[in-house]
Amino acid sequence: MAKRIGKYTFSFDTAPGVAGSAAVVGKKEGEGPLGDRFDRIYTDTTMGEASWEKSESAMQREALIRALGKANVASSEVQAVIAGDLLNQCIGTTFGLREMNIPFAGVYGACSTMALSLLMGSIMVDSGAAETCVCATSSHFCSAERQFRYPLEYGGQRPPAAQWTVTGAGAAVLKNTAEKVKITHGIIGRIEDLGIKDANNMGAAMAPAAKSTIAGFLKDTNTAPTDYDMILTGDLGSVGSQLLCELLVKEENIDISPVHRDCGVMIYDAEGQDVNAGGSGCGCSGAVVCSYIMQRLREGSLNKVLFVGTGALMSPTSSRQGESVPGIAHGVVLMHD
Amino acid sequence: MAKRIGKYTFSFDTAPGVAGSAAVVGKKEGEGPLGDRFDRIYTDTTMGEASWEKSESAMQREALIRALGKANVASSEVQAVIAGDLLNQCIGTTFGLREMNIPFAGVYGACSTMALSLLMGSIMVDSGAAETCVCATSSHFCSAERQFRYPLEYGGQRPPAAQWTVTGAGAAVLKNTAEKVKITHGIIGRIEDLGIKDANNMGAAMAPAAKSTIAGFLKDTNTAPTDYDMILTGDLGSVGSQLLCELLVKEENIDISPVHRDCGVMIYDAEGQDVNAGGSGCGCSGAVVCSYIMQRLREGSLNKVLFVGTGALMSPTSSRQGESVPGIAHGVVLMHD
Repeated sequence: MAKRIGKYTFSFDTAPGVAGSAAVVGKKEGEGPLGDRFDRIYTDTTMGEASWEKSESAMQREALIRALGKANVASSEVQAVIAGDLLNQCIGTTFGLREMNIPFAGVYGACSTMALSLLMGSIMVDSGAAETCVCATSSHFCSAERQFRYPLEYGGQRPPAAQWTVTGAGAAVLKNTAEKVKITHGIIGRIEDLGIKDANNMGAAMAPAAKSTIAGFLKDTNTAPTDYDMILTGDLGSVGSQLLCELLVKEENIDISPVHRDCGVMIYDAEGQDVNAGGSGCGCSGAVVCSYIMQRLREGSLNKVLFVGTGALMSPTSSRQGESVPGIAHGVVLMHD
Repeated sequence: MAKRIGKYTFSFDTAPGVAGSAAVVGKKEGEGPLGDRFDRIYTDTTMGEASWEKSESAMQREALIRALGKANVASSEVQAVIAGDLLNQCIGTTFGLREMNIPFAGVYGACSTMALSLLMGSIMVDSGAAETCVCATSSHFCSAERQFRYPLEYGGQRPPAAQWTVTGAGAAVLKNTAEKVKITHGIIGRIEDLGIKDANNMGAAMAPAAKSTIAGFLKDTNTAPTDYDMILTGDLGSVGSQLLCELLVKEENIDISPVHRDCGVMIYDAEGQDVNAGGSGCGCSGAVVCSYIMQRLREGSLNKVLFVGTGALMSPTSSRQGESVPGIAHGVVLMHD
């Protein structure tokens, strides 16, 4: 059973376990600082498929199959996949999972999807509605770029605050058994919109939501940033990360800077990889959390991580209609057991 | 706590209650056979907004606010909204809920979204992660038509198997208390794809998924169709409904025809309203379940309904790339208490 704590947070009496996780990425991500942490690096980012959308589906399926293998769980034992992605109608996920014959619940949280799927998956395992489930997500630079911005062939210029959509996928297997990594708390985010209209500055659009979720969580649990080995956002990039830290100090008098990291900053080499403000896309926190973070939690070099996935809930249609970009941030606490 | 039953189904020890529900619809739906069941009928389907997408958002917000009013729950008491819609990146939902300041978890199940949100919401209430949550969805003929098919101004011809996207929204408030309507069971659907490529024949694309969910559920629970007052699909329309009944008899030797109804067939007058095979869209089962069905369950003229929401998990992009249309169907049992 879960217990409500404070206004927005809940904790699990018996924490669902992470039995295994896997991440697969494209060539650029494989050349980044976390390259040796991923389960597979595709040097051909078409993955041999006929379209970028199909490539993304292939990646998500591979991450899921590898996570199942590492958790030693057969696909027939999985009682639910909780997954989603950035593409219209979540087709990256649908066509990736189509042949798997596993019950599937679709979620949409833009770049916060890894956190949202872990949140919903852990609730499902906690209730007993599923004993074993998989949380998964993906993004692909080429499918996202042409859907949200410009045709790739156009070669549009990217302003400094723009983030680079990660080509990658992550999957984690949750079980109702004791595992080396467990999910102890969750917080569902509220939509925050401060009126940012620049589709090339997603970090700034999402930072207020991250602020509200982190401040709410720390208040609800009566904890301080230093009670965590890491407060991990995904994916504010460098511009949004700085804004988040400033907002938390200014409006909440909370300094997370000693323990704050951001998946979008971690996945690329800011000096050498020409990615402007860093990585973004569902696959960014998907790949970072399901590889590096889970590995360090499993070995015990990290003990307690507050992972806050951030998403920008806009579409090209809403932007063309003059709407601003609403942000959201969902959080889970991942602990070494 | 939930208990697993058979291969795909789960039941709740203490069934989450439906404390209130509401449905709002457009002019055409108001003129249909269920017209006097809806909470509000908009005669101007722009709802006074500047775009069809904003109109859809206004409808979903209104359904949610009316459901809260009928459940006598303040928005500040709601610990989660589980909602989604058909629009790219679910903007109908996002911009509808933006000002509400309620924690929000997005789901994507195409036209099965009402069933998926009831499923995830009841699991959340069951676990204790939320004591009160709202499940909601919407669709709008004009925002869906121009996104999935043709510009409205083009006046494209509609083949006989085509369905008419419902302009409507539904919302239901779930609580961890005893209410006149309760959710006792759930089943998460698997993706089924028999290779249908006609985007104007969604009923046929979704019928195999409905078959698989209904047959799985009846087998898991060791029940027969006549154990239910109604097996309600949403939304196969007339073509898909006939196919579902035929498939169940032929492949599973199950005859649901005496108790089968379909939201897409019920919402319009097949003779007089020129809607070809019937209604579709998230708002179709959203509006029918959150008005007529919940009202009859509340008063006890229906006691036990297996509601199976069906969705077509395609996008215009996947169809243009030659992909077929995968279907999915999620189920919940709604009971008078």
